[in-house]
Amino acid sequence: MSRYLDVAAAQMGPVARDEPRSSAVRRMITLMREARARGADLVVYPELALTTFFPRWVIDDESELDAFFETEMPGRETAPLFEESARLGISFYLGYAELVREGSEKRRFNTSIFVDGTGTIAAKYRKVHLPGHDEPQAGRTFQHLEKRYFRTGDLGFPVWHACGGLMGMCLCNDRRWPETYRVMGLQGVELIMLGYNTPVHHTGYEAVDALAGFHNHLSVQAGAYQNATWVVATAKGGTEEGSEMIAQSAIVAPSGEIVAMASTRGDEVITARCDLDLGRFYRETIFDFERHREPSAYGLIVERKGARPPDA
Amino acid sequence: MSRYLDVAAAQMGPVARDEPRSSAVRRMITLMREARARGADLVVYPELALTTFFPRWVIDDESELDAFFETEMPGRETAPLFEESARLGISFYLGYAELVREGSEKRRFNTSIFVDGTGTIAAKYRKVHLPGHDEPQAGRTFQHLEKRYFRTGDLGFPVWHACGGLMGMCLCNDRRWPETYRVMGLQGVELIMLGYNTPVHHTGYEAVDALAGFHNHLSVQAGAYQNATWVVATAKGGTEEGSEMIAQSAIVAPSGEIVAMASTRGDEVITARCDLDLGRFYRETIFDFERHREPSAYGLIVERKGARPPDA
Repeated sequence: MSRYLDVAAAQMGPVARDEPRSSAVRRMITLMREARARGADLVVYPELALTTFFPRWVIDDESELDAFFETEMPGRETAPLFEESARLGISFYLGYAELVREGSEKRRFNTSIFVDGTGTIAAKYRKVHLPGHDEPQAGRTFQHLEKRYFRTGDLGFPVWHACGGLMGMCLCNDRRWPETYRVMGLQGVELIMLGYNTPVHHTGYEAVDALAGFHNHLSVQAGAYQNATWVVATAKGGTEEGSEMIAQSAIVAPSGEIVAMASTRGDEVITARCDLDLGRFYRETIFDFERHREPSAYGLIVERKGARPPDA
Repeated sequence: MSRYLDVAAAQMGPVARDEPRSSAVRRMITLMREARARGADLVVYPELALTTFFPRWVIDDESELDAFFETEMPGRETAPLFEESARLGISFYLGYAELVREGSEKRRFNTSIFVDGTGTIAAKYRKVHLPGHDEPQAGRTFQHLEKRYFRTGDLGFPVWHACGGLMGMCLCNDRRWPETYRVMGLQGVELIMLGYNTPVHHTGYEAVDALAGFHNHLSVQAGAYQNATWVVATAKGGTEEGSEMIAQSAIVAPSGEIVAMASTRGDEVITARCDLDLGRFYRETIFDFERHREPSAYGLIVERKGARPPDA
């Protein structure tokens, strides 16, 4: 029994601060065409794919900040991507900054959408695990102000039927948290789409930053294995506005094995033929959740946010 | 700032079905002496270290089954291990089958204890994630009947102060479940002791079984990294009563890196000097749980045991 889905990760190199959406979208269309030509039915783009990774800067001017956000999707500049998707009959995942106006209030999210092969938005996700800070940190060349510019996602971790299987999605830092995969695993997810922008110099500790590539793969591989799901993880990599970002986009099997990986730090398509039934070897045995999970022992995971050591 | 703890994993090769406890304990004392001579203050033994891995067989005779269990700890045969520990001033972790009589009822657990450097039991754990089946499966050369012979652990995942830091423990299959590490991570754990017995031919799927060593390390490395804790993972390896078991005992740093690994499948000591403060690079940044976890999005982890796909 096999259910094959041909997928592509469309890694992107840097997007400059002054690069217009139309240019980023042109690059994405080029990648989409290559993905389709190589047989893909689904292409996964990075997080915040339409612009530079602006949370690296303090931006106090509100109109300057708003310029990085989309107020409609598709908008005038992103419509060609949707049109090409429908023309080619290929689904895609796109990460972007979302601005929602509700009366006089502005709500901003780090968002991803899944667009099916007819050019229709079929699912939406808003990033739950926002890394970094809400105030600038002294001594940093680049800030990481996602907590300043975005609200915590309010749509949970959706899993939905598409592409002949059960799809899920998340964004960047979500991939370091096993809870992300598990909440989707408990909904039977078979393929998770994941875009990321990960600066190499992130924590301020050289010993940690030096392992950025290892930690990226470790988290994704463990999440895939422990939930018997495919993961398509797509980077915006390379040196963007002076900030070095990891690449190594990867397609990971339910075995936890990397079956395809980008070999550059720029625009690059990688593909894999994914058997969505491959996870059953795990779901029926080691990871038969119904037989083996023990939720009564997991209470602290939801009862407690921070760590609290026992009394000495 | 550094808090060093020298630790050892005391991997064991096969224990034969007819090997008396006294022999296993003698081997363990030899390993303990070597660990101590190499500077270790803590030595971690495997799961069910005192006997062969008996859940591979259907054992219907109750007295035959009971013979694999300890009714007191220390008992007559295990007392020498406690005495040597106190004499050398070294702490240890030991996995064993525990039989508790309550009136006419027998309760059996797959248990581990932590014995401090005075020979006193300071903490106890009973395995939560019992793998395998409660009924024998047709067509298997070896069964995996942990669910038949043991009850689910009823002591949670304890974390306690010892060895100058915060210690935790778990057993074998627990290591594949991210919930295990997280429940200890939320108690601030800095070093997790873990013993295992893992047959290579376990799931019946060759594609899965062939990756047993990779899955072992992947799970432990991800659990260590995502909770910024050391893990000392100790195997009973080699071919035991015809059943091939993985070895590759490992000491894993809070970075997720393997810093020591066994190179044989038999009795072998590996050691590492663990800085219990190393985890703070992660706890203060990426894995500052108080700042970054989002428990309100994790509800399904405790609300649901098995996976349930959304309606089509």
